[in-house]
Amino acid sequence: MDGAITSPGPARGVYDAASLLPLLDPRRIAIVGASPRPGSFGGNVLTNLTRHYDGTILPINPQYDRIGELPCYRSLADLPERPDCVGIAVPGAQVEGVLRQAAEIGTPSAIVFSSGFAEIGTAEGAAMQRRIGALAAETGMRILGPNCTGIVAVRSGAACNILPSVRDLPMVPGGIGLVGQSGALGYVVFQAMHRGVGFSRLISTGNSCDVDIADLITFMVEDPDTKAIACLFESVPSGPRLLEAFDRAFRAGKPVIAYKVGVTAAGGRAALSHSGMLAGDAASFRAVFERTGVIEVDQFEGLLETALFFSRAGRPKGAGVGILSGSGGSVVMAADKAERHGLAMPQPGAATVEALRQRLPGFATVANPADITAESIRDEALYAECVRSFAQDPGFASVAVLMPSAHGQAAVTRAHGMSALAGELDKPLTLVWMNEWYEGPGAHVYDGSTTLSVFRSLDRCMNAYRLWFDQARKRPVLEARPREHAPDAAAGPSHRLLAAHPPGASLTERESKALLALYGIPVVGERLCTTREQAIAAAREIGFPVVAKVEAAEIRHKSDIGGVKLDLRDEDAVGAAYDAITHAVHDQPGVAGVVVQRMVPQGIEMIVGARQDAQFGPLVVFGFGGTLVEVMGDVAIRLAPVTPAEVRLALDGLRMRRVLDGARGAPPCDIDGFCVLVARVSEMIADLSSDIAEIDVNPVILGKDGGVAVDALVIRGG
Amino acid sequence: MDGAITSPGPARGVYDAASLLPLLDPRRIAIVGASPRPGSFGGNVLTNLTRHYDGTILPINPQYDRIGELPCYRSLADLPERPDCVGIAVPGAQVEGVLRQAAEIGTPSAIVFSSGFAEIGTAEGAAMQRRIGALAAETGMRILGPNCTGIVAVRSGAACNILPSVRDLPMVPGGIGLVGQSGALGYVVFQAMHRGVGFSRLISTGNSCDVDIADLITFMVEDPDTKAIACLFESVPSGPRLLEAFDRAFRAGKPVIAYKVGVTAAGGRAALSHSGMLAGDAASFRAVFERTGVIEVDQFEGLLETALFFSRAGRPKGAGVGILSGSGGSVVMAADKAERHGLAMPQPGAATVEALRQRLPGFATVANPADITAESIRDEALYAECVRSFAQDPGFASVAVLMPSAHGQAAVTRAHGMSALAGELDKPLTLVWMNEWYEGPGAHVYDGSTTLSVFRSLDRCMNAYRLWFDQARKRPVLEARPREHAPDAAAGPSHRLLAAHPPGASLTERESKALLALYGIPVVGERLCTTREQAIAAAREIGFPVVAKVEAAEIRHKSDIGGVKLDLRDEDAVGAAYDAITHAVHDQPGVAGVVVQRMVPQGIEMIVGARQDAQFGPLVVFGFGGTLVEVMGDVAIRLAPVTPAEVRLALDGLRMRRVLDGARGAPPCDIDGFCVLVARVSEMIADLSSDIAEIDVNPVILGKDGGVAVDALVIRGG
Repeated sequence: MDGAITSPGPARGVYDAASLLPLLDPRRIAIVGASPRPGSFGGNVLTNLTRHYDGTILPINPQYDRIGELPCYRSLADLPERPDCVGIAVPGAQVEGVLRQAAEIGTPSAIVFSSGFAEIGTAEGAAMQRRIGALAAETGMRILGPNCTGIVAVRSGAACNILPSVRDLPMVPGGIGLVGQSGALGYVVFQAMHRGVGFSRLISTGNSCDVDIADLITFMVEDPDTKAIACLFESVPSGPRLLEAFDRAFRAGKPVIAYKVGVTAAGGRAALSHSGMLAGDAASFRAVFERTGVIEVDQFEGLLETALFFSRAGRPKGAGVGILSGSGGSVVMAADKAERHGLAMPQPGAATVEALRQRLPGFATVANPADITAESIRDEALYAECVRSFAQDPGFASVAVLMPSAHGQAAVTRAHGMSALAGELDKPLTLVWMNEWYEGPGAHVYDGSTTLSVFRSLDRCMNAYRLWFDQARKRPVLEARPREHAPDAAAGPSHRLLAAHPPGASLTERESKALLALYGIPVVGERLCTTREQAIAAAREIGFPVVAKVEAAEIRHKSDIGGVKLDLRDEDAVGAAYDAITHAVHDQPGVAGVVVQRMVPQGIEMIVGARQDAQFGPLVVFGFGGTLVEVMGDVAIRLAPVTPAEVRLALDGLRMRRVLDGARGAPPCDIDGFCVLVARVSEMIADLSSDIAEIDVNPVILGKDGGVAVDALVIRGG
Repeated sequence: MDGAITSPGPARGVYDAASLLPLLDPRRIAIVGASPRPGSFGGNVLTNLTRHYDGTILPINPQYDRIGELPCYRSLADLPERPDCVGIAVPGAQVEGVLRQAAEIGTPSAIVFSSGFAEIGTAEGAAMQRRIGALAAETGMRILGPNCTGIVAVRSGAACNILPSVRDLPMVPGGIGLVGQSGALGYVVFQAMHRGVGFSRLISTGNSCDVDIADLITFMVEDPDTKAIACLFESVPSGPRLLEAFDRAFRAGKPVIAYKVGVTAAGGRAALSHSGMLAGDAASFRAVFERTGVIEVDQFEGLLETALFFSRAGRPKGAGVGILSGSGGSVVMAADKAERHGLAMPQPGAATVEALRQRLPGFATVANPADITAESIRDEALYAECVRSFAQDPGFASVAVLMPSAHGQAAVTRAHGMSALAGELDKPLTLVWMNEWYEGPGAHVYDGSTTLSVFRSLDRCMNAYRLWFDQARKRPVLEARPREHAPDAAAGPSHRLLAAHPPGASLTERESKALLALYGIPVVGERLCTTREQAIAAAREIGFPVVAKVEAAEIRHKSDIGGVKLDLRDEDAVGAAYDAITHAVHDQPGVAGVVVQRMVPQGIEMIVGARQDAQFGPLVVFGFGGTLVEVMGDVAIRLAPVTPAEVRLALDGLRMRRVLDGARGAPPCDIDGFCVLVARVSEMIADLSSDIAEIDVNPVILGKDGGVAVDALVIRGG
């Protein structure tokens, strides 16, 4: 169960790294509830520390004078020296008292392993958690947990952690910093140390009464041991802090790789708003990741692999990936998977072709991906030489080797050679271990390599490459964003217009469009008519063909009840439409008349919307509309405001994107114009956050001369 | 490289199982080219056999009198007894001669390891391969290969295989029969024997000059040791044989699990025909799999896992899957993945809830998926008892346990307990080992279990479950298919109508629709007009609104050149449209006039098409049309003829399927009517295979009263 609850008191920023040093790199650790009993929390922590830690361990338990080799103290007050961190493994109800004692002796940090707080779902548990959170705020003592498994700082061996098998882990220092809300899943990833994979640290946040994932990410941004940050979480107590942490990581160039669980669970379930836009928690997090350059993986198994790759890959120098293998079947599979992930597979340049031709048997096909044939088993230098040639090709940003099987000492020798070669190349080398079930000779060498990156699935490797190229496209767009958003000149008049409506009220279509027009968003011009004659006159003035629609704030899906008539080509048609509409809506509330507007030229139906997210503030949603919107959900969601360049990138990720290039015979749409339109809607909700709950512009008809808002609805906030 | 080429001579059916027994379960194996040299083909085969085989090994090499313990013979003619199978490891050019000698002494089968045949891409290599294929046909000697790695028959240890590491494999008998075109990839899967996974046999087809994958599948259908057949292939020499083999497996209830590589490679690359339908190799294979109930996986890593699951799962008894874990994070992830794979997650019944409540801590949430909490680590019986309760719930067809981490001997004990429990349950139990990097205690027990099924990825587990439920829906539909297709009464008149056109000619829209109408397919009625006055008169008779279209067989995309005018509401509009069309097409060839037809009521634009596949015969394609057809490709492809029930299943798999249920305000479409329409088109191409190359019905407008063909094009075959 998810025990993260919003902290009491005023919102705070992220803690600075220095203030978390005693918690995350303690030199002296006291354990309250230390025990010689194997399997107990206190026993496990003590065993883990004893096995790995090079600092001072201070067990506390009034029942013992010694535990094992170590003197044991009656209470925190009896300690001979002040600890940097106190690990607390006592029943939940006693935690608050222990924390107060720790604060009294000036302990700068504590880790609460105990459970029985917000995660059990009782009011009492939640209240207890709030109290210790308040204690942290009041005393300045930083608290990790409660209900967490603790930390492991690999370099010092500070394995202040309750999981029993930590004692058997080899401590392999390396560049991956891992922070997980769930103790078990994070630890699963950390167990890769058994395969020689190096980490800087493991941190379990548990319920986050004080220190949260945002603080920990911020710490790792400044931690020189951490080259990439892997995160595994379900929810966070503070949206703004998470944004701040991710943004710091992005600006520091330290990759953050995230696996978000709960993308469909009740709280985060994607919900369809009345206009069919995807909303809800999961979509908001996606918007956060996109804004801050966080690399999201959708396979748990890919979290560590992708983090390792990004910790070593740098930025791509080249447009695609060169792939080679001694297994022809693997090579064909690679072509499949590259296409599935939208990955460029450029062909090798003339120099590369020449080099490979000289080296490979005559019947080998020199191409990308390259089948270097079974000769690679007999000819031990073949793999390395082909890799070197591929790495020299300016078209390849990286080289991937697919290793389907391995045999004998030669495989181990080859693995060491490849790892050494990876250290010499100025481009990342990846190794796909094509065997799910057999580690085999050489596997451990690849897993523990500090130079190349290993994937245990071709599919996940190709996905990581796609994320890598995506990231390279995103970086300049995100870097070009202004740091601060200044309200537009239109904000003042818009605010006054909105102030005329009570909180929660829906504006009429005409009012909503007037507001959009203030922000420079093209809208279809129209007249409100209350008689048949007015409607005909309006149509004559606007020019045929026209559309007639009922004007009524309360009616949201006007066409469903016969409130919309399209393509009216003459005066008779307008008159008949007026009559039909007024008849159809005669029993509906709030009807103000019939609006006559220009019939918009043909184009693609798009939607643009915006709403306020409880955690992350204003969001903008945009994408394909029409009858397919609810079925396909082919929309993107981003934090508002967005820049047109961000919108462009997002559109490129939609499944129906190619429709905008002009289907058979149709001219290409003015995509840039649409991007500006979306950006303006996003600025509008950002400027007017306190006044607007929701904007729904549906449809925007997008053609070769840009988009125009045909219908719109603004709902007042407050 | 892919060396499968179509065999010479008349088409044959699959070989019967008995005729392949000497090849696949030989009691005496001769090795021509046997050698004491480690690393040579002949050396490797001999080592592998010596290590594992309980039959007679007969090495042949004129250079040696003995190799190791074994007497070595000068030639096949010198053998003291007739071998069941001859393994051939000599240079390619000598193979034909050796095969002739083998045939002369009456050897019933041979395995050709040698390369240098069709796979090297030369005319000479292909000719050599054709000659040995012809030799097989002529002598009745069954030949596997050339360019194959050979076989391993696990029970007898007949490891007649050139891969060097086969000698180190433990021989673990089990239910998976594995046949692969690629030697390396198939062997990768087979290496799971190192983890205790049992197989019946491994067969590498290589270039398939004689015995092919279809024969081998047919053999394994009758092989009592094989419970599920795993296939890994890129191409096949004979489509009809493959169909026959798959169909036999389906009717015998023996699951076939396939991973098809090359779904995007040049030969198999999906191509867009002029109507935007997906064509090409990959789509045809998909149609074959769908017709024959083959279970296709799209992750290489999932092939063995899925085969193991199906070898043990039987048919689902229950609507969904019950999932439980001691890790809360894993449980949330399971909900995500189940939703992503469209898997039902019913809630437990009252009795199950009651049983779990009594057993679990008070704060545990009793639901599906169930978090049985970290108590499961301390309380050793908890997992087993919760699994038993879930398995008794009639809503759950299977129970999945997610194991994120494991520690100590207790984990091993638990693994043995779970494996024993799986043997007692009447529903399949699956275990997801949530750790990609650490095998850990218990892992080997799960991997080697003969009762439960292991997955190393939650995502792949959920995918396998989805395939399982899909299969259960498909089985009755496929079983209800008539075994033979009898031509319809319409075939005769249709044939006469087509005979009037030369081979390759396109019929006009009117002619095409007349043909469709013969098959009872609803088409829009229309008149061909050659004057403005005729057009107006026709419109008056049909009733307004009407559509006017140019009639010209050569013009395929009429609307692109102004050849179509829609929604003509009066005589003036019809006259103007007639003038505009004749003006627009005045320089086009083959214009026969202007067709006036009824404007079809609103509905969803669908497409139906049919074409001849070189390997598999007539295919039918159907799905969503309109401007999105090319962008989305949301169509299904099936072998013709299909039954309406098959069409219905296929439609349920399309992404835009929900559109047919009626978008906002629209009535639901008559899906059954559309299914019948598609079935009729499929019967038409099946009946008229020799006369029709292609049918393109685009659009079919589908509304509440069924579908109607608005435009159609038939291309004559021949």
